[in-house]
Amino acid sequence: MMTTQSLILCVPAFGVLGLIYTFFKSSWVAKQDPGTEKMQGIAKSIQQGAMAFLHAEYKILSIFVISVAVLLAVSGANNEASHPLVAVSFVVGALCSGLAGFIGMKVATKANVRTTNAARDGLGKALEIAFSGGSVMGLGVVGLGVLGLGGLFAIFSSVFGIDTVENVTLVMTIVTGFSFGASSIALFARVGGGIYTKAADVGADLVGKVEAGIPEDHPLNPATIADNVGDNVGDVAGMGADLFESYVGSIIGTMVLGAVFMTAPEMSENFNGLGAVLLPLVLAAVGIVTSIIGGMFVKVKDGGNPQTALNIGEFGSALILLVLTWFIIGWMLPAEWSDGARTYTASGVFIAILIGLAAGLGIGKVTEHYTGTHTKPVMGIVRQSVTGSATNIIAGLGVGMMSTAIPIVILAAGILGAHHFAGLYGIAIAAVGMLSNTGIQLAVDAYGPISDNAGGIAEMSELPKEVRQRTDKLDAVGNTTAAIGKGFAIGSAALTALALFAAFKTSYEQTHGTTLSIEITDPRVMAALLFGGMMPFLFSALSMGAVGRAAMSMIEEVRRQFHEIPALRKALDAMTRNEGKEQSEWSDQDRADFEAAEGKAEYSKCVEISTKAAIREMVKPGLLAVATPVAFGFIGGGQMLGGLLAGVTVCGVLMALFQSNAGGAWDNAKKMMEEGIEVNGEKLVKGSAAHKAGVVGDTVGDPLKDTSGPSLNILLKLMSVVALVIAPLI
Amino acid sequence: MMTTQSLILCVPAFGVLGLIYTFFKSSWVAKQDPGTEKMQGIAKSIQQGAMAFLHAEYKILSIFVISVAVLLAVSGANNEASHPLVAVSFVVGALCSGLAGFIGMKVATKANVRTTNAARDGLGKALEIAFSGGSVMGLGVVGLGVLGLGGLFAIFSSVFGIDTVENVTLVMTIVTGFSFGASSIALFARVGGGIYTKAADVGADLVGKVEAGIPEDHPLNPATIADNVGDNVGDVAGMGADLFESYVGSIIGTMVLGAVFMTAPEMSENFNGLGAVLLPLVLAAVGIVTSIIGGMFVKVKDGGNPQTALNIGEFGSALILLVLTWFIIGWMLPAEWSDGARTYTASGVFIAILIGLAAGLGIGKVTEHYTGTHTKPVMGIVRQSVTGSATNIIAGLGVGMMSTAIPIVILAAGILGAHHFAGLYGIAIAAVGMLSNTGIQLAVDAYGPISDNAGGIAEMSELPKEVRQRTDKLDAVGNTTAAIGKGFAIGSAALTALALFAAFKTSYEQTHGTTLSIEITDPRVMAALLFGGMMPFLFSALSMGAVGRAAMSMIEEVRRQFHEIPALRKALDAMTRNEGKEQSEWSDQDRADFEAAEGKAEYSKCVEISTKAAIREMVKPGLLAVATPVAFGFIGGGQMLGGLLAGVTVCGVLMALFQSNAGGAWDNAKKMMEEGIEVNGEKLVKGSAAHKAGVVGDTVGDPLKDTSGPSLNILLKLMSVVALVIAPLI
Repeated sequence: MMTTQSLILCVPAFGVLGLIYTFFKSSWVAKQDPGTEKMQGIAKSIQQGAMAFLHAEYKILSIFVISVAVLLAVSGANNEASHPLVAVSFVVGALCSGLAGFIGMKVATKANVRTTNAARDGLGKALEIAFSGGSVMGLGVVGLGVLGLGGLFAIFSSVFGIDTVENVTLVMTIVTGFSFGASSIALFARVGGGIYTKAADVGADLVGKVEAGIPEDHPLNPATIADNVGDNVGDVAGMGADLFESYVGSIIGTMVLGAVFMTAPEMSENFNGLGAVLLPLVLAAVGIVTSIIGGMFVKVKDGGNPQTALNIGEFGSALILLVLTWFIIGWMLPAEWSDGARTYTASGVFIAILIGLAAGLGIGKVTEHYTGTHTKPVMGIVRQSVTGSATNIIAGLGVGMMSTAIPIVILAAGILGAHHFAGLYGIAIAAVGMLSNTGIQLAVDAYGPISDNAGGIAEMSELPKEVRQRTDKLDAVGNTTAAIGKGFAIGSAALTALALFAAFKTSYEQTHGTTLSIEITDPRVMAALLFGGMMPFLFSALSMGAVGRAAMSMIEEVRRQFHEIPALRKALDAMTRNEGKEQSEWSDQDRADFEAAEGKAEYSKCVEISTKAAIREMVKPGLLAVATPVAFGFIGGGQMLGGLLAGVTVCGVLMALFQSNAGGAWDNAKKMMEEGIEVNGEKLVKGSAAHKAGVVGDTVGDPLKDTSGPSLNILLKLMSVVALVIAPLI
Repeated sequence: MMTTQSLILCVPAFGVLGLIYTFFKSSWVAKQDPGTEKMQGIAKSIQQGAMAFLHAEYKILSIFVISVAVLLAVSGANNEASHPLVAVSFVVGALCSGLAGFIGMKVATKANVRTTNAARDGLGKALEIAFSGGSVMGLGVVGLGVLGLGGLFAIFSSVFGIDTVENVTLVMTIVTGFSFGASSIALFARVGGGIYTKAADVGADLVGKVEAGIPEDHPLNPATIADNVGDNVGDVAGMGADLFESYVGSIIGTMVLGAVFMTAPEMSENFNGLGAVLLPLVLAAVGIVTSIIGGMFVKVKDGGNPQTALNIGEFGSALILLVLTWFIIGWMLPAEWSDGARTYTASGVFIAILIGLAAGLGIGKVTEHYTGTHTKPVMGIVRQSVTGSATNIIAGLGVGMMSTAIPIVILAAGILGAHHFAGLYGIAIAAVGMLSNTGIQLAVDAYGPISDNAGGIAEMSELPKEVRQRTDKLDAVGNTTAAIGKGFAIGSAALTALALFAAFKTSYEQTHGTTLSIEITDPRVMAALLFGGMMPFLFSALSMGAVGRAAMSMIEEVRRQFHEIPALRKALDAMTRNEGKEQSEWSDQDRADFEAAEGKAEYSKCVEISTKAAIREMVKPGLLAVATPVAFGFIGGGQMLGGLLAGVTVCGVLMALFQSNAGGAWDNAKKMMEEGIEVNGEKLVKGSAAHKAGVVGDTVGDPLKDTSGPSLNILLKLMSVVALVIAPLI
């Protein structure tokens, strides 16, 4: 039988394993052929832009991290219930999150051009490169999460001991700083990345496509590099930080709740009573191995179906993990135990995990129904596009609102079910269940923007059309899996927030020695609940406003370049004169003008504008999210803080579902019209009035689904984790 | 000194006074000159359409009312804590609400054409008629409210006695049925009216204005009568029922909470301890008198400012009422008393009322800031319209979300303040304070659609332009006051819902003899909270979908008429041929074609379509709102029902603010561009690209601000009142 000590040391080793895998995969990607000189040049611009953004972002964040760390150290030193070492965990959490983003982005900006190059020959190799790039992000996130969290737990448990509830509570109090650090970075990365990507996207589209009439990703558009950088900083680094936070948060929340069981006599047989505390860490560690195994199945021959490959990888990994989970639970937990108030069973814990998985899958399926192509709700938007932009928008808003209903029913049923089978611990471990497969899930998620970028590079390098078609095909197949991933992200965010909320209450009660009753009809709780509910609205308004302002600066810059750079102006004039003609039919002068403009657009200016705007605009919402729970906690006490958290959680989940799904539905409604779809006997195609209405809807949906919506996932977790960290202090 | 008995009998007498005033005012309106035969014909069509809708609506509602009444009677007879007479109160409440809507609509459809006719000569008389029409609605609502509620209380208190807490609790249990009846009718009226008005409006605009290019309210447009009917059924009857519900709900909630004080020894001196129970009724009764007095000040000479007249009337009335309130509280309540847990003071109650008024005013002012013309947020939307519909929509959504922040802070502060000074009773009486001025407030609110209708009639009757200008001026001045009215409506809905929520808890505890602890971290409460929060999203999605479907039927009907009625087709062709020319420059044939089309449009078909669609579509959301709290209460018990109510209240208030304000802001952004506004040196005018983007925004905002947004006010009150009614049964 394994000792507790060796198990605790084993966990970080799995994290190291994940990182070794990451290292090998990224070296393999780097060794692939990056293609022609032109392709390499473009890829280099994207990579430089992405790194410049990370550099600027991390500079600001380091000031934030150091300030908060000092505050945590000082308040920890002055309060018996806390500890100054919380600051160390916080810094390590922030570093791990930042490093995960850096690794993911670094490899994504290498994998993109190599995917393009591989797509010149066929689909199989291209899929392999794109997915390998995604795997690096995925395994990087889980590897750093398990190593960081497991490592801190191992160190602090050997320093302070873990033989009593008091010891473990202290260790957990210190370790929660890790989650706080991860959450802070995640929030800024999501908001900053979201603003960056949409400012560049909207700016590029509105002036480039609409005003100047040049196609997407065309090298003449000065904002086009910024647009592709945006895909990386928003969809790769932003999403990586987001899932890193959920992953870490759900594990820590479960550990805190597991510590309550330590005094149960039945528990002490198992790892000194620590079985329930260590279980989420062990599950996460094993998830790394199954993600690696699942990744090996993602292969496709030319002519094969990449969707099947992704499905086999993801669901295969989940299935193996589920079987292993059954045995791990049997090994780590007693068959039955009691905390005095109720009886728990090992099989109950397993069922809670199953419920978590089923809920995530269910929400994902509903997401797909409301946002996928050719589904009834999205067809409804297409149909309403015939009468113009206004009806398209109304229909999309309606779909978004409607799409909240079933996921909330699933969530509510999941909460009730998990609680029925395993109490509050069950709710927390259900979130862990949803997330233990994060390694491969995130690999699939990150594979999407890499393929997207590959397509952009193909376009900008003016490669033959079939290359772009192949990358489009790669991009498209990831959509279903991505929708399910979104369901897991929102569902796990909600459960993680609840787990952290319960952990906050537990920690407050343990450190204060009193019961914390958060009675909903208490007017102070009700006032806090209203305020908390308002936060996601305010937060969304701030981030949408930020996108609007940043896009405006971008538009002005692109207009300026079209106006002031003579070569660009001449090329645009040539394009206008020859509209609808093939380039071979142009006059020699026009063709010469057009070719002379190559490389004349000042891409770096646009990159700089997006970077500056994103950095500037992420500060206000970020500070708001951190400062509000602190203010409520210290002024209003545990009850008002509890009310605040409940309000943020409820409205945050709803607004996240509403905004993400409305945006997704508009996006696919537009895509359906671009592919050509028949409505009432009329064929809607690209360029039709209905399609133009669809473009309006898609543009409206962009900041909703890529900036404000996903930021809310983090908002609710971050505020709960702040509450957990300050629980001993208020 | 007055006896309790005579005071109880006095209250309904004030209600009768209000109704007598209503009778005289409406006779006066009816005596005014209705203008030319053509005007009368149009007005008659509108009146017939409105009455046809009410008829159809009430037919369906009577089935609903009878079914619910039977259920209430049966369950009341089988449960000791309830009483079969609840059914009687329910029916009376439904009848009063229905009657208030009927009276208001009847006079509004008379006042509209008479206002048009008076506007042919000048502003003063037109204002008087329009405002008198509004007064009938306003005083009708408060008169029926006070008479119905006061009358029921007088009857049941003499039957069951009111000398013990048990007696009063029973009487209040029975009387709450009145509020339930009022709420049910309100919900159907608001939803049905909202669907009607927007289906007609969107339908008329999209085919009429956009496709066929004919101006608003033009007699050639078959949907134009339906559009004007819609203003009446939505803005007059719908709003009247809405405020009737708030008015009654806040009074009943306060009465239930006041009954808790009856055993306090200091209370028994005052009206047998009933002082706190009767206070809200007496305040409402006195508010009738001050509304009548305030109404007398609403006069304007030609050249005078109608806005000033409305302000003097409304604020004058509020001020007199406030002074009287001070004395009434001193008369009815002891200077200080205790319920065992805390001490209350008469001055604390007065301050709570002041806080309610200040909060209502504050929310109104914020509403004006976010939705008024020439304010910074609305100018932001105008500026974003230059880059097209998409940025206009994003900006409007942002403004709507942002606009929730300060009102919520005001509400939260109001809740904390009112509770600080007078406990839960303080929160409830703050809502009564907001609403005791309802008589004149509603008069001003209803004056708006009457002026709007008057303008429509002027247009359809092809009266000289200055008539329309005068009615437009009347319409515009009501806007500020209407914005403040909206603030009161949302603020009072929130406070009323909280009062009813607290009353539900009190009633549950009294009838069950246990404490009801609704602990937010209890997973059952959390699940219910999530579900409750989702309801406003689902409800909005249903009503928006309903508007979309109904508008589609309308569009098809208008297209059919343009296609199948030869006279209409010829007239449209003539208009197209002579676009931009004055009618005098047309060829004789064209002019003849145009005149031949007069009266050929089949208005009644469009009226019928709107009516049928509204009736059909209001059923699902209506039943959902009534059935959900019943299901939660009986299956999940008091705790889950409590969680549900909290979720609905929080998200309902937020979504109502978001939707109403976004809609209002888009509306005024469009209006500013129609008036002509300079942005970055460019003048935006009617017909410009920016204005077209503004029209899209306005169309999107229409169902948000006139259908789904206002319906939520009722949803949250209705669900709370259902909870209160079933509290003894679950």
